Amino acid sequence: MKPVDLNCDMGESFGIYKLGLDEEVIKYISSANIACGFHAGDPVVMAKTVRLAKEHGVNVGAHPGYPDLVGFGRRVMHVDREELKQSLIYQIGALQAIAESQGVQLKHVKPHGALNNQAATDLDLARTIAEAIAAVSEDLIFIAMAGTAMCQAAEEFGLTVAREAFADRAYNDDGTLVSRKQPGAVIHDPDQVLERVQRMVNDGVVISINGKELPVEVDTICVHGDTKEAVAMVRKLSEGLQVRPLGSK
Amino acid sequence: MKPVDLNCDMGESFGIYKLGLDEEVIKYISSANIACGFHAGDPVVMAKTVRLAKEHGVNVGAHPGYPDLVGFGRRVMHVDREELKQSLIYQIGALQAIAESQGVQLKHVKPHGALNNQAATDLDLARTIAEAIAAVSEDLIFIAMAGTAMCQAAEEFGLTVAREAFADRAYNDDGTLVSRKQPGAVIHDPDQVLERVQRMVNDGVVISINGKELPVEVDTICVHGDTKEAVAMVRKLSEGLQVRPLGSK
Amino acid sequence: MKPVDLNCDMGESFGIYKLGLDEEVIKYISSANIACGFHAGDPVVMAKTVRLAKEHGVNVGAHPGYPDLVGFGRRVMHVDREELKQSLIYQIGALQAIAESQGVQLKHVKPHGALNNQAATDLDLARTIAEAIAAVSEDLIFIAMAGTAMCQAAEEFGLTVAREAFADRAYNDDGTLVSRKQPGAVIHDPDQVLERVQRMVNDGVVISINGKELPVEVDTICVHGDTKEAVAMVRKLSEGLQVRPLGSK
Amino acid sequence: MKPVDLNCDMGESFGIYKLGLDEEVIKYISSANIACGFHAGDPVVMAKTVRLAKEHGVNVGAHPGYPDLVGFGRRVMHVDREELKQSLIYQIGALQAIAESQGVQLKHVKPHGALNNQAATDLDLARTIAEAIAAVSEDLIFIAMAGTAMCQAAEEFGLTVAREAFADRAYNDDGTLVSRKQPGAVIHDPDQVLERVQRMVNDGVVISINGKELPVEVDTICVHGDTKEAVAMVRKLSEGLQVRPLGSK
Repeated sequence: MKPVDLNCDMGESFGIYKLGLDEEVIKYISSANIACGFHAGDPVVMAKTVRLAKEHGVNVGAHPGYPDLVGFGRRVMHVDREELKQSLIYQIGALQAIAESQGVQLKHVKPHGALNNQAATDLDLARTIAEAIAAVSEDLIFIAMAGTAMCQAAEEFGLTVAREAFADRAYNDDGTLVSRKQPGAVIHDPDQVLERVQRMVNDGVVISINGKELPVEVDTICVHGDTKEAVAMVRKLSEGLQVRPLGSK
Repeated sequence: MKPVDLNCDMGESFGIYKLGLDEEVIKYISSANIACGFHAGDPVVMAKTVRLAKEHGVNVGAHPGYPDLVGFGRRVMHVDREELKQSLIYQIGALQAIAESQGVQLKHVKPHGALNNQAATDLDLARTIAEAIAAVSEDLIFIAMAGTAMCQAAEEFGLTVAREAFADRAYNDDGTLVSRKQPGAVIHDPDQVLERVQRMVNDGVVISINGKELPVEVDTICVHGDTKEAVAMVRKLSEGLQVRPLGSK
Repeated sequence: MKPVDLNCDMGESFGIYKLGLDEEVIKYISSANIACGFHAGDPVVMAKTVRLAKEHGVNVGAHPGYPDLVGFGRRVMHVDREELKQSLIYQIGALQAIAESQGVQLKHVKPHGALNNQAATDLDLARTIAEAIAAVSEDLIFIAMAGTAMCQAAEEFGLTVAREAFADRAYNDDGTLVSRKQPGAVIHDPDQVLERVQRMVNDGVVISINGKELPVEVDTICVHGDTKEAVAMVRKLSEGLQVRPLGSK
Repeated sequence: MKPVDLNCDMGESFGIYKLGLDEEVIKYISSANIACGFHAGDPVVMAKTVRLAKEHGVNVGAHPGYPDLVGFGRRVMHVDREELKQSLIYQIGALQAIAESQGVQLKHVKPHGALNNQAATDLDLARTIAEAIAAVSEDLIFIAMAGTAMCQAAEEFGLTVAREAFADRAYNDDGTLVSRKQPGAVIHDPDQVLERVQRMVNDGVVISINGKELPVEVDTICVHGDTKEAVAMVRKLSEGLQVRPLGSK
């Protein structure tokens, strides 16, 4: 059985507003992607989430997004490239300082929401993200959807890339995700999800929504901690996989 | 003639909004205090201002404030200590990453506006600021109003303190600043300002508004770049003083 | 049995963030205080909450606060009076337009959080609030803590005041609320709460934390909908009281 | 000589940040489009600008935009239609209350920046804007670029439309504006600008960048007040035209 990383978005609470079962899901994952205050999170939430990750020996990474709190960073915004670059450095740097003040080293970066989705197919945008990450530190791992422009961009900028697959999402024959608007896009059965992930990790294969065998190279699996069901699924995955943080030997 | 640092708040533009004659005043100062996006500034402005400081060999420091853009950080806010600490680490870290991505090392921190004014007399608040600075790096110099609680707090947390005096402000007999609401609070004559600063730096003395000689120890002089007159005054100061950055030998 | 209004803060969700069991508590109250986007709420949440109140025949009022989303309007801010006035008119007007676009007339205004607490004892501040309300419409009812500066201010500006008491809070001998930091500040037993409220409404009397009988004139009772227990208590109150909206005959 | 309205964006300052020569340009225009706090402006600026317009007998209208202060509302954002509608009602309502508190009636609405540009060609978006305006008041005039989807949408929702042309912009043969990225897009010679506007107003004709005569129906001319040169041009226009507010007989 090959080892794999489990990454989960965290620290998405804001002020009085609580989002996500961070205290639960942290037990089962190996990489925490922490929101940096632009689409979610605030300095106190960031510090708490770093502390939580540290306590559980979970890797800490930055999860930067568009400056759009009311839209949770899920809306496409036409942001100028220089502005995007500096705003990513800003967000990563802010989390980095909070983490280092607790003796924790930032390990990775994963873009959030609309930014992440756009960068999957927009190489120029993906390059801006990779450039920003490398500008902070070339030791940061870029968590990038497997087979997308982000992987190419990461390599161009000399970054280690962690190829990401999705635990509970169906794939089209061309390796892209089935749109959430289509039936069958999300797989809810935990047994089926675990089996799919095991095949991805061990055999490098995923079965498309049409039954086709697709090759997939995966270093990390994206999981969610927003509901009890989601957390239960992550627990199941953690029990059926050999979970190992990115960058460990 | 003893050397002294000239520090100036900069990078206070925001988006389309321009504030301050940064490109002018940068020629005459040795330390730039750069706003970090909470009360003023944005990632693009921060990056531009770092670039400007670098080009002119001027030290770069963080100028963090309260999260109050519409009030320009000039309003008292009752911010919880843990929140203040984390929000300062956040702001300093954000600027640090932007600076380091340009090969520039952050040298100092100076709090902004209401936060700075409150910390002059509130030792507990001053300690929170010092704690946050030290949490990012013990090598950062804390620019603190001479003779205030901030100097004590800086020392308690093992930080180098740069004692700050004001070029154009009148002092009360007890060494505090004359309130801006009182007549004579601000000195507008450049010759008089230069003479006062020379006496502060060389003789360690400032004459109070009532004519009393007060001892003052000063490492850095606070100047302004918001109007043409202000810039002209800074130029005059730079010509009549031996300007030397903080931390230089 | 005398009739009384039950008012509850609502519409405090924001973007993806959900706060409060609005859909539950709306069944038992007669006045909804809707957040206006400065400390909580956003235009979509405001519109939804107006719709919900309309469906349940509940009065709609504005619940404006300080511009402090991360602090949920609970932090003291030193806001200039003209700025406070205009920002209150802004918030009330925004909700008014959303309500009227659904054919709903705004009935009342209740300030939020730190602003409300400060105005209880700061007559000048209370006057600014009353002035802002009257500037929008003299038909708006000012929900004001009974016996505070706000009641006086409301009268000075010709506004109808609805004197507010708290269902679950203990009172000091001088009629002020026992601080939440002290033991016994909040009463959790639903039977006791109902009995207290019945005495307030019917007899104009509340028993202080030291057992003293205090006179209290009350037009509306402040209730909460943030937890299941809170909603259960409101249901109990609604069953044991004659709930009637403000301004109804 | 036929009368025409001159409209200008105003109230785009924010907090300490000043933008635009509002006090100058107000002398020469008949309609002020006032920013509503989402892309620019704040409650104090809005109130000041209403006062200024009132003093000069200039019509007051709302100039709502995307929630994007750092981008000044100039960036495309993919905002959900219901959210856009409610956020427009919110902004218009906020300004309406501020205006009415000064005894001023809101006369028109003109969308800002990216929202305005998108609505010129996106009929569905234009309908959302028209729907929001009508939801506040069917008496509000919709200032819409002549010949665009916005004019059609305004009519569908029973709004009076004021067809807008641009004083200093070149037109393509198809009646669209020449992109600012192309040479000749902006006309800087005041005499030429006045002559063009006179032909538009009196003859219903504009000469395209290729010399073609295009028919144009225009009720209002868009002018700018951001620089001294811009204000001088508006003064020249006001002297060479018969300036008359929208809706006047």
